[in-house]
Amino acid sequence: MDERDVRASFAKQGALRLLGATMTHVGDGACTITVDYRDELGQQDGFFHAGVLATLGDSAGGYAAHSLMPPGSRVLATEFKFNFLRPARGQRAVAEARVVKPGRTLTVSQIDIWVERDGGRVHVATGLQTCIRIEEATVAPEE
Amino acid sequence: MDERDVRASFAKQGALRLLGATMTHVGDGACTITVDYRDELGQQDGFFHAGVLATLGDSAGGYAAHSLMPPGSRVLATEFKFNFLRPARGQRAVAEARVVKPGRTLTVSQIDIWVERDGGRVHVATGLQTCIRIEEATVAPEE
Amino acid sequence: MDERDVRASFAKQGALRLLGATMTHVGDGACTITVDYRDELGQQDGFFHAGVLATLGDSAGGYAAHSLMPPGSRVLATEFKFNFLRPARGQRAVAEARVVKPGRTLTVSQIDIWVERDGGRVHVATGLQTCIRIEEATVAPEE
Amino acid sequence: MDERDVRASFAKQGALRLLGATMTHVGDGACTITVDYRDELGQQDGFFHAGVLATLGDSAGGYAAHSLMPPGSRVLATEFKFNFLRPARGQRAVAEARVVKPGRTLTVSQIDIWVERDGGRVHVATGLQTCIRIEEATVAPEE
Repeated sequence: MDERDVRASFAKQGALRLLGATMTHVGDGACTITVDYRDELGQQDGFFHAGVLATLGDSAGGYAAHSLMPPGSRVLATEFKFNFLRPARGQRAVAEARVVKPGRTLTVSQIDIWVERDGGRVHVATGLQTCIRIEEATVAPEE
Repeated sequence: MDERDVRASFAKQGALRLLGATMTHVGDGACTITVDYRDELGQQDGFFHAGVLATLGDSAGGYAAHSLMPPGSRVLATEFKFNFLRPARGQRAVAEARVVKPGRTLTVSQIDIWVERDGGRVHVATGLQTCIRIEEATVAPEE
Repeated sequence: MDERDVRASFAKQGALRLLGATMTHVGDGACTITVDYRDELGQQDGFFHAGVLATLGDSAGGYAAHSLMPPGSRVLATEFKFNFLRPARGQRAVAEARVVKPGRTLTVSQIDIWVERDGGRVHVATGLQTCIRIEEATVAPEE
Repeated sequence: MDERDVRASFAKQGALRLLGATMTHVGDGACTITVDYRDELGQQDGFFHAGVLATLGDSAGGYAAHSLMPPGSRVLATEFKFNFLRPARGQRAVAEARVVKPGRTLTVSQIDIWVERDGGRVHVATGLQTCIRIEEATVAPEE
């Protein structure tokens, strides 16, 4: 799957447009997605909402997996888990994913999320995700 | 923590307003949050984005936990995990959380997420979340 | 897969024999495995070791999944997650699993673990597990 | 907490003695625990049982956390999650944990598990764990 296909898929994701997220890197089993803070991405204390961070992280993991798959592959997350390490207070969130185990069926990615704050960056979350590969021709995956 | 306080906290969450989410129930260690589908909540195949589902589920878990805490408590998720069971294709997503283990420090909630489709509902995700209680007076939790 | 096949598989599991675990129920997407406490199953405080509980829970989840599969299927856990709710101090641990989502490839189970103590039982852990089905003929699954 | 205290705690863990596990390193937020394969540690296919790997990984995470805590601290896992990447077939399993986020209350560790096979080593699992610190004087933690 070449970078153009990955980026075309990214452009179709309404949820990432809604957040205002940007894919700053993708390829070779890695992906980085970032978003700038605004109140619409916060929780009650003004930190990035954990669900927003998970959305970034899930997407980064999915595209990291996707970048290693043959053309005609779609990818769906089957599960993910995130630990939130520190309050995600800052100007920008950055989710970095890399594939730990590629596979014909299942791909596992490791994801770290940072916030940029006052010129530095703080590690705010770490997670793991499993994706399953679906053949493009399969309109509706198993239900 | 009475229902009014919980709802006041909900109203301050920019990310939930951005999604258009509604809290349809909260109290006694349970919470339900719903959102109607629109393209801005989808991923590349037109299903609810897994991150959107996690945002609903995380929020429902947090408010279920919050509903059992004494006044002056804030709540932060320390970790969550979701398994995505079926493609989340449908008109509305409904996240239902209930506290499995309340605690002075940590509260664990179990979360199920459904989509309403064609008059029925489909179980699309299940998850677990841990929240930590923070005293309201604590401006910045431990970093 | 009938109950006899499931029990034959159980008998081959060295780790469950080492623990002294007993399968007290299996079938129709559910499984219960129990073990009596002895010091060899404890951690430093005399509670059941979290890893012992995970071993019971993982096995119960795997057999719950197995019980719904066609003959000639093997099952491997691809991931699990447990939350430990209370110290697991008691005379016996009981892991109860039930399939939440069966599938041709992936099966997700929900698992609760209890300890019997002083005539009652205490909920000590809850978890989620994903298993993948492997055709019996496949000697070595994908590496 | 010095290395002697950590090793004294290790020696009290019945479950690790039962497995025959050895702590080969501990200190500065890291810990390695290994065990040699024997049939009593296997599942039905002759691989290390996922629960045995989780026991090693959980213990390594707990001691990595413990190594950073002040004297008089006890540690309990509140949750963990492991992804199993490949069949754990080999002569020895090695669990390596390192603390990602130390804390006064909660410590998060990242854990990788390898098996040694035919002179090399294979990455068979990766996971995350949260531990809570308990004051030694607290006989029974919150129930």
